[in-house]
Amino acid sequence: MLSKKQIKFILNLTQRKYREASGCFVVEGPKSVLDLVAAGMELKECYTLKLLDELPPMVQIVINSSELKAMSSLTTPQNLIGVFKIPKMKEIALTGNVLALDGVRDPGNFGTIVRLCDWFGVKNLVCSLDSVDCFHPKVVQATMGSIARVNVTYVDLPLWLKKTPIPKIGTFMEADSVYQFQWPKDVVVVMGNEGQGISDEVRAELTGSISIPKYSTDSSVESLNVATATSVILSEYFRVTIGK
Amino acid sequence: MLSKKQIKFILNLTQRKYREASGCFVVEGPKSVLDLVAAGMELKECYTLKLLDELPPMVQIVINSSELKAMSSLTTPQNLIGVFKIPKMKEIALTGNVLALDGVRDPGNFGTIVRLCDWFGVKNLVCSLDSVDCFHPKVVQATMGSIARVNVTYVDLPLWLKKTPIPKIGTFMEADSVYQFQWPKDVVVVMGNEGQGISDEVRAELTGSISIPKYSTDSSVESLNVATATSVILSEYFRVTIGK
Repeated sequence: MLSKKQIKFILNLTQRKYREASGCFVVEGPKSVLDLVAAGMELKECYTLKLLDELPPMVQIVINSSELKAMSSLTTPQNLIGVFKIPKMKEIALTGNVLALDGVRDPGNFGTIVRLCDWFGVKNLVCSLDSVDCFHPKVVQATMGSIARVNVTYVDLPLWLKKTPIPKIGTFMEADSVYQFQWPKDVVVVMGNEGQGISDEVRAELTGSISIPKYSTDSSVESLNVATATSVILSEYFRVTIGK
Repeated sequence: MLSKKQIKFILNLTQRKYREASGCFVVEGPKSVLDLVAAGMELKECYTLKLLDELPPMVQIVINSSELKAMSSLTTPQNLIGVFKIPKMKEIALTGNVLALDGVRDPGNFGTIVRLCDWFGVKNLVCSLDSVDCFHPKVVQATMGSIARVNVTYVDLPLWLKKTPIPKIGTFMEADSVYQFQWPKDVVVVMGNEGQGISDEVRAELTGSISIPKYSTDSSVESLNVATATSVILSEYFRVTIGK
């Protein structure tokens, strides 16, 4: 029988401040939990309806379905809830394509971008302090395990850019076409917030800008989603610098 | 004062069968409703907390907040609910890039793909019958008005492909690189379901296949999200055939 305190601890982990204080994050569902374990994330404990063969028994705590319901933040709870340790941030290596996010707020977009980094082999994702937390449950879910393989770091983005000696390129609605861009091998690419784009403070530190041409002739077409725009930009970088 | 029948009519429109029977779909929130009106969609009626200057008074029905709450399918209702007429499907023009979806089920992915079509100027989106309905409230929301500018058609996809005389290219996990592909000007590009990819019945009707190279060297990286994959493929088609 779980104590109220244990249940509250899990529920609190949906909030950033409790994640930061405890150094833990929470993931629901067997697939997501096993993906993260396979990718090397440290599972602290796991609340489950029945013991899983794939996990060491000592980290598994068997609970009943009403306890699961009390701990879950999903409308349809998914059999088990894993509590993982937040890994230590690693140093940002300034080689290859370093992706930077300036205030991306939507957990789904953020998670999709982490997954893109993983696919294209982008090892470092640098985020402004007002970007969504990468250990937000919806972000972790959307990354499909990729969160364990990409080094996500939160920094004072304008300050970090100022000190960064490689080219720093921003993606804007109006700028030179990405298809004409002469890509340097080592580069920081900045993607902006869903509504406002790149902030003035970040823009001031950039050394160049690119844009994805709008082929539609209809002027009412507004913008691309930040995750699909990131997809085009990363594809272009790797096509040009590596080919295949 | 609204009748229970009116409230039930609106709530029912979240289900595909009621949309098909009534020929109507529902959208919540002033931005989405005004976007669709601006894009030429026919607003049948609109339930609102207060009259809007931007819309003709005769289509506006003022309701109170408890009525709004009863009609809304959002946890935080957004001031007004618009009921639109489902537009007639137009013929599929076999020119340029015709995008086809084979069983894309997630409303967010589908809506993002419609928005991508709008950005790149893809005029025709052909969908298998088991794809999510494009007038699902979450799809309409995710398209940000683009649903009014892209001709979305539902067909028996294998049969339609069989009868279609232009090249038909499928996107797979393993195939020749999209970066080496000799794009024909007129082409059907097929994207598959989120989990299963392209079905065997559709695969049998294809004339070619492409793939987005995985640049990551980590074998545990599984796949790209269908919307971000579509983004890369459309970007490549337009870069090669139109340039800029």
